[in-house]
Amino acid sequence: MVPRYSRPAMTAIWEPEARYRIWFEIEAHATDKLGELGVVPASAAKALWDWWKTDPKIDVAAIDAIEAVTKHDVIAFLDWVAQQVGPEARFMHQGMTSSDVLDTTLAVQLARSADILLEDLDALLAALKRRAMEHKYTPSIGRSHGIHAEPVTFGLKMAEAYAEFSRARARLVNARAEIATCAISGAVGTFANIDPAVEEHVAERLGLAVEPVSTQVIPRDRHAMFFATLAVIASSMERLAVEIRHLQRTEVLEAEEYFSPGQKGSSAMPHKRNPILTENLTGQARVIRSYAMPAMENVALWHERDISHSSVERFIGPDACITLDFALARLAGVIDKLLVYPERMKKNLDRMGGLVHSQRVLLALTQAGLTRDDAYRLVQRNAMKVWESDGALSLLDLLKADPEVSAALSDSELEEKFDLDYHFKAVDKIFERVFG
Amino acid sequence: MVPRYSRPAMTAIWEPEARYRIWFEIEAHATDKLGELGVVPASAAKALWDWWKTDPKIDVAAIDAIEAVTKHDVIAFLDWVAQQVGPEARFMHQGMTSSDVLDTTLAVQLARSADILLEDLDALLAALKRRAMEHKYTPSIGRSHGIHAEPVTFGLKMAEAYAEFSRARARLVNARAEIATCAISGAVGTFANIDPAVEEHVAERLGLAVEPVSTQVIPRDRHAMFFATLAVIASSMERLAVEIRHLQRTEVLEAEEYFSPGQKGSSAMPHKRNPILTENLTGQARVIRSYAMPAMENVALWHERDISHSSVERFIGPDACITLDFALARLAGVIDKLLVYPERMKKNLDRMGGLVHSQRVLLALTQAGLTRDDAYRLVQRNAMKVWESDGALSLLDLLKADPEVSAALSDSELEEKFDLDYHFKAVDKIFERVFG
Amino acid sequence: MVPRYSRPAMTAIWEPEARYRIWFEIEAHATDKLGELGVVPASAAKALWDWWKTDPKIDVAAIDAIEAVTKHDVIAFLDWVAQQVGPEARFMHQGMTSSDVLDTTLAVQLARSADILLEDLDALLAALKRRAMEHKYTPSIGRSHGIHAEPVTFGLKMAEAYAEFSRARARLVNARAEIATCAISGAVGTFANIDPAVEEHVAERLGLAVEPVSTQVIPRDRHAMFFATLAVIASSMERLAVEIRHLQRTEVLEAEEYFSPGQKGSSAMPHKRNPILTENLTGQARVIRSYAMPAMENVALWHERDISHSSVERFIGPDACITLDFALARLAGVIDKLLVYPERMKKNLDRMGGLVHSQRVLLALTQAGLTRDDAYRLVQRNAMKVWESDGALSLLDLLKADPEVSAALSDSELEEKFDLDYHFKAVDKIFERVFG
Amino acid sequence: MVPRYSRPAMTAIWEPEARYRIWFEIEAHATDKLGELGVVPASAAKALWDWWKTDPKIDVAAIDAIEAVTKHDVIAFLDWVAQQVGPEARFMHQGMTSSDVLDTTLAVQLARSADILLEDLDALLAALKRRAMEHKYTPSIGRSHGIHAEPVTFGLKMAEAYAEFSRARARLVNARAEIATCAISGAVGTFANIDPAVEEHVAERLGLAVEPVSTQVIPRDRHAMFFATLAVIASSMERLAVEIRHLQRTEVLEAEEYFSPGQKGSSAMPHKRNPILTENLTGQARVIRSYAMPAMENVALWHERDISHSSVERFIGPDACITLDFALARLAGVIDKLLVYPERMKKNLDRMGGLVHSQRVLLALTQAGLTRDDAYRLVQRNAMKVWESDGALSLLDLLKADPEVSAALSDSELEEKFDLDYHFKAVDKIFERVFG
Repeated sequence: MVPRYSRPAMTAIWEPEARYRIWFEIEAHATDKLGELGVVPASAAKALWDWWKTDPKIDVAAIDAIEAVTKHDVIAFLDWVAQQVGPEARFMHQGMTSSDVLDTTLAVQLARSADILLEDLDALLAALKRRAMEHKYTPSIGRSHGIHAEPVTFGLKMAEAYAEFSRARARLVNARAEIATCAISGAVGTFANIDPAVEEHVAERLGLAVEPVSTQVIPRDRHAMFFATLAVIASSMERLAVEIRHLQRTEVLEAEEYFSPGQKGSSAMPHKRNPILTENLTGQARVIRSYAMPAMENVALWHERDISHSSVERFIGPDACITLDFALARLAGVIDKLLVYPERMKKNLDRMGGLVHSQRVLLALTQAGLTRDDAYRLVQRNAMKVWESDGALSLLDLLKADPEVSAALSDSELEEKFDLDYHFKAVDKIFERVFG
Repeated sequence: MVPRYSRPAMTAIWEPEARYRIWFEIEAHATDKLGELGVVPASAAKALWDWWKTDPKIDVAAIDAIEAVTKHDVIAFLDWVAQQVGPEARFMHQGMTSSDVLDTTLAVQLARSADILLEDLDALLAALKRRAMEHKYTPSIGRSHGIHAEPVTFGLKMAEAYAEFSRARARLVNARAEIATCAISGAVGTFANIDPAVEEHVAERLGLAVEPVSTQVIPRDRHAMFFATLAVIASSMERLAVEIRHLQRTEVLEAEEYFSPGQKGSSAMPHKRNPILTENLTGQARVIRSYAMPAMENVALWHERDISHSSVERFIGPDACITLDFALARLAGVIDKLLVYPERMKKNLDRMGGLVHSQRVLLALTQAGLTRDDAYRLVQRNAMKVWESDGALSLLDLLKADPEVSAALSDSELEEKFDLDYHFKAVDKIFERVFG
Repeated sequence: MVPRYSRPAMTAIWEPEARYRIWFEIEAHATDKLGELGVVPASAAKALWDWWKTDPKIDVAAIDAIEAVTKHDVIAFLDWVAQQVGPEARFMHQGMTSSDVLDTTLAVQLARSADILLEDLDALLAALKRRAMEHKYTPSIGRSHGIHAEPVTFGLKMAEAYAEFSRARARLVNARAEIATCAISGAVGTFANIDPAVEEHVAERLGLAVEPVSTQVIPRDRHAMFFATLAVIASSMERLAVEIRHLQRTEVLEAEEYFSPGQKGSSAMPHKRNPILTENLTGQARVIRSYAMPAMENVALWHERDISHSSVERFIGPDACITLDFALARLAGVIDKLLVYPERMKKNLDRMGGLVHSQRVLLALTQAGLTRDDAYRLVQRNAMKVWESDGALSLLDLLKADPEVSAALSDSELEEKFDLDYHFKAVDKIFERVFG
Repeated sequence: MVPRYSRPAMTAIWEPEARYRIWFEIEAHATDKLGELGVVPASAAKALWDWWKTDPKIDVAAIDAIEAVTKHDVIAFLDWVAQQVGPEARFMHQGMTSSDVLDTTLAVQLARSADILLEDLDALLAALKRRAMEHKYTPSIGRSHGIHAEPVTFGLKMAEAYAEFSRARARLVNARAEIATCAISGAVGTFANIDPAVEEHVAERLGLAVEPVSTQVIPRDRHAMFFATLAVIASSMERLAVEIRHLQRTEVLEAEEYFSPGQKGSSAMPHKRNPILTENLTGQARVIRSYAMPAMENVALWHERDISHSSVERFIGPDACITLDFALARLAGVIDKLLVYPERMKKNLDRMGGLVHSQRVLLALTQAGLTRDDAYRLVQRNAMKVWESDGALSLLDLLKADPEVSAALSDSELEEKFDLDYHFKAVDKIFERVFG
């Protein structure tokens, strides 16, 4: 976790104290049920909750000190709680294994993180929708291979991103369901020393599903799917960031990240206004994406479990969630405040001497009876001249002057092919599909 | 694609001829609708379908030869079809762009591949279920960290795999839906020269959903999610393969891959029977997993598209699908024919002198009034002696002889803690959860 | 391996026949030495080489048929050779294990592949050097963050790539040395049944180093380093490809991939000239890069070996080498034939109204006694006006008209700061560093 | 960075304060040279160094506060230093660009980190050598595919690891050289406003090489190679960790991680002694390995640079170095204190009823005149009986009783083939190769 790429609410989920709080709740809920089942005295859970109601401070350092001796984190925590609560605490953790606590805690942390990420996506979607509506009919050149193709609108770009992040949202909902399970099934998942009713009770109290069959741990394919989903979302984020970086290029300059008063673009070059936020997001996307690999390598634990997944998760659990939260929020801000330059879009659209309309002429020639191949050659030979003039020549003028073309299409027919609005007649339908 | 890791039905989907057949169908269906809309003569589609009904051979070499000149695959194909069909073919592809064909074709190929993979998963699930039922109560030692922990059954191991591959199946259903979309939206996705009704018609005929908003291409977050899902499934496959490799280790030997008559395990060592199928699967899992990375890097195409995704997909499209198909089928075969050795499982279970029952004694001591810490030390000091004797000593005997233990628990109380069936009382409930 | 991304010389190395030829040579060289040591009759090797001199065709299908029964490739091959050579062949492979042959063969294949890749790099370096010299002083705008910064020359861009691929070359030399080792050490690397002299002899004949200590296999950290190196080279290739893609963007158009007569850029838009070669290379770079992951996962084989690495290498061995060979050759061709447009570079350089000279003014103001902060603000306030005019205003004019600036710097002092050649005075020194 | 997986010396390199200290040194050394060249007053450097001699505390919070306004870290730092040093500080950074400082600083940090990692490798190599010598002739079963193969010694296992980490060391020396370069070349690498002599001076003072040609930044192929090398080293680390995990498995138990008094293996099962350190290392290897991917994606920066690499490096720079340092030190400790059980090794070696000697019999039969195929079948039919008896039968006895075998080999000839020392005759030669 890099502090500058973190936000407080998400970071709090991953603090040691938050983790211990969830541990306690799991143990206390379990003890409740164990008491109800008559396995432990009902007084045990009461003692735990009574102490909890005093809103005790979790003394992380003290727990760490115990762990330094026991080399076992859950035992250290149980010892510390026992010191606080007294002899009744010995009934805690009855029949459970450390991983019952650890894995269910991770499930809670990841589910809470997913909830924040869903809010982040909602904020991003809202910003995208607003800008899409604002620029629904702002003409802009569409590009393939970085080369001018045919007209689009800036609103369509935003609508595409909206559709993509809607898919991201749906995937994240699935991914959340993947990891929001509770396992309290004992040392090897057989419930040898604990009633499955305990698992069901704790799951219900924590808002988790019951893990149908666990080993010592919750199976890691669930987590792999979760982090793979985050990786795909990060990749979508990268796409939008790269789009903005392209739009801000000096020669393009159709949009710019908001540049605040007092901001300095470069220590050496006072004129610079750089798309540093989206560049920054591009790098973060690379990092979040890379976490999918160790998450997937974590799946093949040995037999009923080995603990190799744990060190991986200490990195990627907080880092993926915290960084993606930061990044999505940053991206929403970028979109929200993006400086959009319709005049410049128009200027770029016009700079190719009408080449963007070449396909319509091609189609018209075909419909006028030429073979596709002949039509293609006719348009291409004029288009190439415009291309080589860097937009100084006009495709329409050249076509009019080409006898083979004018034999097939009249001047007014040709002129009609150079109408910009022609390209936008389906925008409304597309918006309906995307925004409903 | 490695021929030895491929099966015919899946490979056929990815042959050039299959690809061209889908291209033709897309073009012909589109021409149907274009005729209906009056954009092209109705005779155009008829000419295409009439030719198609002759069941023409697709001349891949001829198309390649044209592409060598045009350097454009779709144009080469259209030219070749025009040569076969005659002048009516010039109405084909009206208002469409190459990617309309290419991307929709890829969607069809991936969807068909997913259908085969779903069948593969079903076969694997069936094998797992059968073996789970067969060994529902076959006792086996559960291991954490590679160290004996507490008893499980071999059926539980199979049930765990069943649950994991059920999740894999559900994920693949989602992933199939992600990529099964049709885009026929023109050069930059605006439907400038083609009615959205064409897209809707082709989608319906090919069993695809309509892509709500495309650029020149179908957005690559869909494909990234598809390949990421395959990567997670491959990781689950690796887990099961590694489990079998562990079980077949000489010192463990609780199960073995089927060893056919005439098979030679080693050119140098005639006694060898190696788990080569599951080792082979382990490697394949690594490869399939790695394809997720370039698939995710493909998402951030420039503006309305660049073509960098294409070379990636020429590798990972066929390779991921063909290899996973082969691997899942191989894994189903391994499970189906797995040699399972219950006697050896029993032998391993007993080899630790009863240490696997240590937790029950710990719990009993706690319930008899000792603190958790005292109970732990009492059990541990006896367990360590058994451990160091390599199972020659019996934990039960040592506990009976330990005055501090016997002060708390009678011999018969102790003996009751060493009952194997105690561990299997929840097996039925778990099976119900997993198999319904 | 994707046929369209392959070249014959490299592909030949990875054909089954080439593989079997190396197998034979290893076996025959080993038999030579075994004969010399008196372990087998000298006639054994003679029989092998006599047959070999008949230039026999390797019957891949026949060997495959035997493997279908034995399920062991080396045994199948030995059986087939024995059928050809007769009873003397039974002395072949004496004391060796399959991996002695397989791993040494892979070493030969990778070393030969590396030799071709080194030639590819040399061709690329030659092209880069030629274009660097040609455009040593062709002015071009340098960009950071995609935003105009200060002048560079196009030759410098080529020199940077030259330096980068020189490093790539040095890394590949190291990587070749990593994998060019020979192991003929028997079933677990102890030379139990074979004299180390055999290994030394075969190594010497094949131009390999002796593996100091092997298990059953050559350790896979060597291969991991090899494929990781290819991955880094692919990443450098991506960098140069992306540079060209940027330069070819419609709004930039400072360079273009060569566009051959008859080539069609788009089925729909006749005016398109797309950087498809470098986009294609970008995708190939992603794929080659991804192979580093399974190569690294291959390192941790179990004990003296498991065979999970093998299926991985059947993919990435040929695919990484063949694709990188193709890609480097393609890149060399792109550079060699790149259309470079100096006039357009000049036009782009001038389009910002002199903003690219802002730093020099900043420094001059500082040296004239202003604090850095004051100087920065003075320059920035004028630069921002030019920026917002989209280059219509001139920075020099504005600075001359700014009283605070003119208080510090005279008009002629200001003018001197706008000299382009000022930026190129170190080009010669840099070229000396790079090209020697 | 995960605090529990970090050590102070390495962590200190990556603290903000250490970073600012290097920044200052670069600026001050550069000012020295600028003064010497007459570009700035000689008093400027003196003022900087005079302040530095007061051993000032770097006020990270104050610098952060300035950055919150300027949104530019280097400018914030320069402003803060100027506040401390006074007006002479305005000559600092003359003609330089932020990246000159940032990239050269990263080079210093990575080089210092590499120095610590080299020490870590030396400590690991020393431990491996000591254990190799100690167990040079400790017999142990060699395994391929997890199946018993032929005898090795435990010392050989250590020698293999020694050889592998010697290669790791050599690679790290190369990787250090890759990144230990200094670039002070201005905004786009042209030295427009700074003499190359400054770069040379600073490089020499910091023990770095001069970057032959930079853009705004040091090219990222260098860093990619550095992190890829760390990833390969991590993979070797994983291999050794996995070996120990295997050896500690209950059924194998040939070695164990040191288990300290007071340590608790499991909260639930007091008898557990788990290989948690090497499991932990396995997970860390996965994480360090994954950092190679974003490092390689960082190579293709746009034109003369974009800043997307920066956020990646804020994660992987410290995380890869700190975690690998911790992990290598942990691994050295594991090897150093590893509990090795020669008796258990012997027991395992003997458990297969002599099957491990099967190859020698096969060879003897071949040399006695049988065809390889006949010999193989003879040995295999007896070996299979031993195999199925789980080692209860003796291969030697069965062979003696097999008339076809005894027709070819006498009892004493057979007995000679079952000699353990036969396998160790090359150990000394191998040790010479490895340890010199």
